[in-house]
Amino acid sequence: MFFSKIFKNHKILFSGFGISSLVGVSYLCNEKYMVNRINYYTYKEVSEHNNKSVGIWTTYKDNVYDITDFVENHPGGKEKIMLSAGSQLEPYWNIYKQHLNNKYIISSILGEMKIGKLKDYNPKKYENFDEPYLNEPIRNKNLNFHSTYPCNAETPVKNIMNNWITPNDLWYIRNHHPVPEIEGNTYSIKITGLNINEKELKLKDIKKLFTKNEIISTIQCGGNRRNELNNFDKTSGTNWSYGAISTAKWGGVWLRDILEYCNLDTDLNKNEINHVQFESIDSVKVSIPIEKVLNPYGDVMLAYEMNEKELPRDHGYPLRLIVPGHVGIRNLKWIKKITISTDEVDGAWQSGMSYRPLPSYIKDVRNVDISNYASIQEIPVQSLIIEPINNSVINKDYLEVKGFALSGGGRGIIRVDVSIDGGKTWIEAKLEEGSEQKLNKAWAWSFWKVKFDNIKDNNFDILCKATDASYNTQPKDYEDIWNIRGLNNNAWHRINVKK
Amino acid sequence: MFFSKIFKNHKILFSGFGISSLVGVSYLCNEKYMVNRINYYTYKEVSEHNNKSVGIWTTYKDNVYDITDFVENHPGGKEKIMLSAGSQLEPYWNIYKQHLNNKYIISSILGEMKIGKLKDYNPKKYENFDEPYLNEPIRNKNLNFHSTYPCNAETPVKNIMNNWITPNDLWYIRNHHPVPEIEGNTYSIKITGLNINEKELKLKDIKKLFTKNEIISTIQCGGNRRNELNNFDKTSGTNWSYGAISTAKWGGVWLRDILEYCNLDTDLNKNEINHVQFESIDSVKVSIPIEKVLNPYGDVMLAYEMNEKELPRDHGYPLRLIVPGHVGIRNLKWIKKITISTDEVDGAWQSGMSYRPLPSYIKDVRNVDISNYASIQEIPVQSLIIEPINNSVINKDYLEVKGFALSGGGRGIIRVDVSIDGGKTWIEAKLEEGSEQKLNKAWAWSFWKVKFDNIKDNNFDILCKATDASYNTQPKDYEDIWNIRGLNNNAWHRINVKK
Repeated sequence: MFFSKIFKNHKILFSGFGISSLVGVSYLCNEKYMVNRINYYTYKEVSEHNNKSVGIWTTYKDNVYDITDFVENHPGGKEKIMLSAGSQLEPYWNIYKQHLNNKYIISSILGEMKIGKLKDYNPKKYENFDEPYLNEPIRNKNLNFHSTYPCNAETPVKNIMNNWITPNDLWYIRNHHPVPEIEGNTYSIKITGLNINEKELKLKDIKKLFTKNEIISTIQCGGNRRNELNNFDKTSGTNWSYGAISTAKWGGVWLRDILEYCNLDTDLNKNEINHVQFESIDSVKVSIPIEKVLNPYGDVMLAYEMNEKELPRDHGYPLRLIVPGHVGIRNLKWIKKITISTDEVDGAWQSGMSYRPLPSYIKDVRNVDISNYASIQEIPVQSLIIEPINNSVINKDYLEVKGFALSGGGRGIIRVDVSIDGGKTWIEAKLEEGSEQKLNKAWAWSFWKVKFDNIKDNNFDILCKATDASYNTQPKDYEDIWNIRGLNNNAWHRINVKK
Repeated sequence: MFFSKIFKNHKILFSGFGISSLVGVSYLCNEKYMVNRINYYTYKEVSEHNNKSVGIWTTYKDNVYDITDFVENHPGGKEKIMLSAGSQLEPYWNIYKQHLNNKYIISSILGEMKIGKLKDYNPKKYENFDEPYLNEPIRNKNLNFHSTYPCNAETPVKNIMNNWITPNDLWYIRNHHPVPEIEGNTYSIKITGLNINEKELKLKDIKKLFTKNEIISTIQCGGNRRNELNNFDKTSGTNWSYGAISTAKWGGVWLRDILEYCNLDTDLNKNEINHVQFESIDSVKVSIPIEKVLNPYGDVMLAYEMNEKELPRDHGYPLRLIVPGHVGIRNLKWIKKITISTDEVDGAWQSGMSYRPLPSYIKDVRNVDISNYASIQEIPVQSLIIEPINNSVINKDYLEVKGFALSGGGRGIIRVDVSIDGGKTWIEAKLEEGSEQKLNKAWAWSFWKVKFDNIKDNNFDILCKATDASYNTQPKDYEDIWNIRGLNNNAWHRINVKK
């Protein structure tokens, strides 16, 4: 994330600076032009530039960077990059390792912000960092890994529809940090905030005190299908294909039962309680509307089982949140604290821009009030073609097309339309597993298939689009949905096959 | 509705019949070709043709029609047209008066089904019908009337945004029958069905026993904007422009309070209760999912006040249902019976095709299992341009555009984008009244406005599209959303202006 590919090209970075300030001029000095006039700074001088009023500087190796105007644009959140303000990037990149050895980040993004070199550079300063990734779980090697430190891996497309419920070891993994090492026996969560009696609950108490329930819910990462958006125009974040989505049967307790046990006063007007905030052991913070939690049909769960097994470490052991119908990030793993609040939680993944789909015409977030664009909660309607695979060759006169569809908020799938002539004509797919879910509580995907006879073309596109129970439909084109963070891509899915 | 414009042209009616039967051939005999061989039938012979196995006949004046293959396609529902099976149309058309004097229905639709004449035709048979429309309410003459018997009238476009809350007399009216004449003092509703103690409650008891609540909710007819779909390809039903939408502050009681008073057992597994059915005094039947009713944040209301006044007769006096976030028809007026049930209610407006948006490629519903296409409950995301008016002339260098947006299920509006260059570039509108609603409980529309400076074109289209809190978006083109019943049109709104 950190210093990721937020700008489609350098021209956009430059636009908006004008010619007004020396700081602005420093951005124009990339290495090529700096040969004849290198500025040198000390660690002390860097440390004095740690806020916007004097400028925000940081270092990587012996280079000094002015990141003042970049912090708002940082895909991983302003909060994270500000850890390095007046200091060094190395300690944080050792956790967010996706930055290391990334030429684009180091040369292009950072390169443009370079203002000089360290006079008193000391490489020994960086030698004895902890290695936070020594105890990662063993993972199925067939996953498609985008990064291992932290682990970002998707279910292989060829396996996605093998089972309506995804086996645990084939689940997509989206971690932001090293997987926490947690001892289940001593683990506890804290429930606190407005209108409630603060309590600390051990895992074993949670299992003992509350009825166990089960729900089947599909979770999709907000960045699923980002690679298609990148083909249209550069976005930022992990370049997910369409395997950042999986389904499990979750076992656990209703969060509303726990809040009742803590004597929550459900009069929402008292202290204006609106949101339930959650914090994980790796310090990710998210929140969801309190009505979703308290709705007896909202099914918000603290889960300790995944497909009838103990929750795996990669998926939140010992306790994770399941918010059915909501985007992946809200289903927080390794949960440690729950807070009843008036406001959304403050942090990169909620109040920051990480999960805010901006309009397609915003290419640079400086001077944009991102609070105008709500963080994703429920996902929009989505469908994907899983068989045949993109760019494959078919050798029959007929064609069987398979895929899945789902929508947010429990809105079931009414219909999936499929075209093999570029959208001129459509055929309705047959809805299969999942289509038996109630149309207002369909937390999991629906599988679909359709057969085309007498295939004559030798090279053609297959398109699909779904309609959900609210009769919402998918946008046709990438240009209708593109956003700088590459979120919520639910444009009509299109693949190419040859005969 | 009855015998309305379901076929885009006659060729479609003919296609599908093949050349197999005499019944099929009879359809090809329109008046022009029948001069030389008129078949004559008696009232008795007609009465014997009252079901599918022997054929379904009916009469209008002295003409005899075979409607066997049409009943499934009848926009007002099979149930309604079957009232005339083996009998006459006159008694029913006297209530559904929109059929009378409608040349398209009488000549084109019925004309094609004519099989002969009545041998014993007696015009006196039809002389002494009751006049059911003698006591209709007095209405604001500025409404745009599509029909008066029953009343179908829309809020004039120029008045829609005068007030965020629509004054009662400017509310759109969508009635299916004469307005019932009800005496509030003796009026009562019956609550019955599964898992509940049957009760009959008088209006005064309802007002006394339960807490009064207020909500502001926008109601939109499922056929709003049908005229735009008709421009693309013929649909059936009232040719609404975009004024079949209004907003009020409703006063009444939560339906869940009433069900609790009747000791509803809320274990949905017991008897598999899924739906709450409603029937009105004019015999319209609808149902909604029970989870919507029982959700403490669902706000399903039995309303007896509209904008702090007694509910007007046209809007359901003395008691109507308010189902915020759901399509107009579910907000049933003149309610008389509530039934807890396993199933959706049977009837034209729920199980019939009246509110089922079919795929765009279905032009004829014969042999289509319409139960595959859910009746509308929550509406999809919608936005409209209200100022300037379509085809108007602007005489300034700048242009102020105003409109509103809303979505179903309480999903608030995140953003409205407006274009004046055919969608090449977009500007974000400023959200105004309504935008302060919670994003998960926005039952009412949001107003928006945007200003364009330096207008240079002399003739251009203005487009708008909205994004809701689930990041669902509107479909771009009419062809993506067209359906034979002309429902749920939420394509990007497009108007033309000249300078």
